[in-house]
Amino acid sequence: METEPPAVEWTGDGLRLLDQTVLPGRVEYVVVRDVGTLVDAIRRLVVRGAPALGVAGAFGVAIALREAAREGWDAAALEEAVARVREARPTAVNLAAGVDRVRPLMGAGAETVAAEAQALLDEDVRGNRAIGALGADWILRRLGDRPLRVLTHCNAGALATAGWGTALGVVRELHARGRVEMVYVDETRPLLQGSRLTAWELARAGIPCAVQPDGAAPSTLLRGLADLAVIGADRIAANGDTANKIGSLGVALACAAAGAPLVVAAPWSTVDAALPDGRGVPIEERPAAEVLTWNGEPTAPAGVAAHNPAFDVTPARLVTALVTETGVLEVSSGRTPGAARPARG
Amino acid sequence: METEPPAVEWTGDGLRLLDQTVLPGRVEYVVVRDVGTLVDAIRRLVVRGAPALGVAGAFGVAIALREAAREGWDAAALEEAVARVREARPTAVNLAAGVDRVRPLMGAGAETVAAEAQALLDEDVRGNRAIGALGADWILRRLGDRPLRVLTHCNAGALATAGWGTALGVVRELHARGRVEMVYVDETRPLLQGSRLTAWELARAGIPCAVQPDGAAPSTLLRGLADLAVIGADRIAANGDTANKIGSLGVALACAAAGAPLVVAAPWSTVDAALPDGRGVPIEERPAAEVLTWNGEPTAPAGVAAHNPAFDVTPARLVTALVTETGVLEVSSGRTPGAARPARG
Repeated sequence: METEPPAVEWTGDGLRLLDQTVLPGRVEYVVVRDVGTLVDAIRRLVVRGAPALGVAGAFGVAIALREAAREGWDAAALEEAVARVREARPTAVNLAAGVDRVRPLMGAGAETVAAEAQALLDEDVRGNRAIGALGADWILRRLGDRPLRVLTHCNAGALATAGWGTALGVVRELHARGRVEMVYVDETRPLLQGSRLTAWELARAGIPCAVQPDGAAPSTLLRGLADLAVIGADRIAANGDTANKIGSLGVALACAAAGAPLVVAAPWSTVDAALPDGRGVPIEERPAAEVLTWNGEPTAPAGVAAHNPAFDVTPARLVTALVTETGVLEVSSGRTPGAARPARG
Repeated sequence: METEPPAVEWTGDGLRLLDQTVLPGRVEYVVVRDVGTLVDAIRRLVVRGAPALGVAGAFGVAIALREAAREGWDAAALEEAVARVREARPTAVNLAAGVDRVRPLMGAGAETVAAEAQALLDEDVRGNRAIGALGADWILRRLGDRPLRVLTHCNAGALATAGWGTALGVVRELHARGRVEMVYVDETRPLLQGSRLTAWELARAGIPCAVQPDGAAPSTLLRGLADLAVIGADRIAANGDTANKIGSLGVALACAAAGAPLVVAAPWSTVDAALPDGRGVPIEERPAAEVLTWNGEPTAPAGVAAHNPAFDVTPARLVTALVTETGVLEVSSGRTPGAARPARG
């Protein structure tokens, strides 16, 4: 199984980000040594995915410290720069959590902060491996130990994490056990993270897949072509309501109608215990041009508006299982993350 | 209100089709004087939409008769050509019905067949006006006489019919009564009939609209941003199961979850009384390139497969109202088209 180039890598004096905006056509990198470049890369989705954003946010504090030293910033300017990183995207709780994790170490300098960010990166990979194994165990117990047809939405793979992946980590583990017959990949408009990134990861791993329009997901499930759906998450409320890429809610409604499990795979850090339910999740509205143009060419008549929310919220009652590195919660049966006491995190 | 150039027009010796593959960028026409060009135009979606296909199919028989006279075909070759038109796309019942309506007149010559096809066209426009009025009446009775936020999927407008439109006919009528606040237009991947065609029609009619990714439809409904959805249909079974553009099923599931009405607007000819339920609807699988490329550029890695069904089937229990030119059936309350006795059709 070919491994992916890492989405996020510390070079000793900066971050090397795999540019996910030009995949699968080109494998290119953006090297980040200042906060402005990092914030722009996060906003443009050069780096994306809740866990990868957490790691990028933590390293971002080290970058801010180095830039402050280089440019002679005062403490207020440094704090302002760290806040810009922390708030570059509003929905993913991990970005802010990554920043907050290393913040107490800022007094010890950039090297110490970068070492802690690297520890977060290493934990993320280990956590993903655990998510994959726990998720595969639960799925094969629930659906029987047989080859499965899996539907996924967006990209919760190696590219969205520090490596291996959350939702795709579960798929990779099922594949390693010989239990994947087919993966239906929602293309995930408007930015096509499914066809561009997930299909790329699956093809490199030799896992059979078919890309489909997002609108096809409900009929794929209701016609019985897929046995379950596995998705990631950007923020999970205490009651289990789950914010994830726009379109996830449609997959969830279809799973419920088809009697197919909806499995959410995410690190425990995605749980925002301070948030009682999904109504409090800020929903990022992205630029209209993402919907109204393609490679700069208009696809809609001039002057027409767009509605382009990046995320939706799936109510807890539709989440069959939440798989984290600490275990599996059967959320729709009442085991909410707010009530659970994880072993760690 | 600016009127659309007609999607289908008889020129006296052939069909003039508005080329819907190049809208909204260019307004161009394909002139059809032989069966090969017509079948190609139908397959490439130069002309599309169930009612427009019915009219094109009926005129197609006149075209076949003229071509047979010109080329000296025997009766078998003529029959074969008519069958090719009839089967150019498998899901829409109207295409075959349009052909079948004029077939008994073939012995009377191309002029007579074209006159009957023109009668079908005129009936379609009148029918759409009736659908618009009946649908608007029902909706304002159900939801209250107030400005509404409407969600629609694909294009069931003037471009999909002989004029005015079915689902968009309802929207046009609501707008004429001052009762449209906003229309959320699903872009409708892979061919973007929503952003390219529906947004074009709405903008020309001065109706406020916003294009959104198909995946946004469920959250638009569950967040209460839209009050109802209005869609067209390509084939309706006797029990009310409704085949329409891929993604309609997701809209229907979201309407049910949100408690918002799902209104299906279609001519009575879309009802296939011989079909007991939706399981018998053939689902056209379209070329993989529609999903995997954009303007000839790949959007997914080389060698990846696609799943590209053109239609899905919404179960009758999710269809709140079926509006035809003969009246409104509250399908989810048990009033199925198979049991109804329409005044005409």
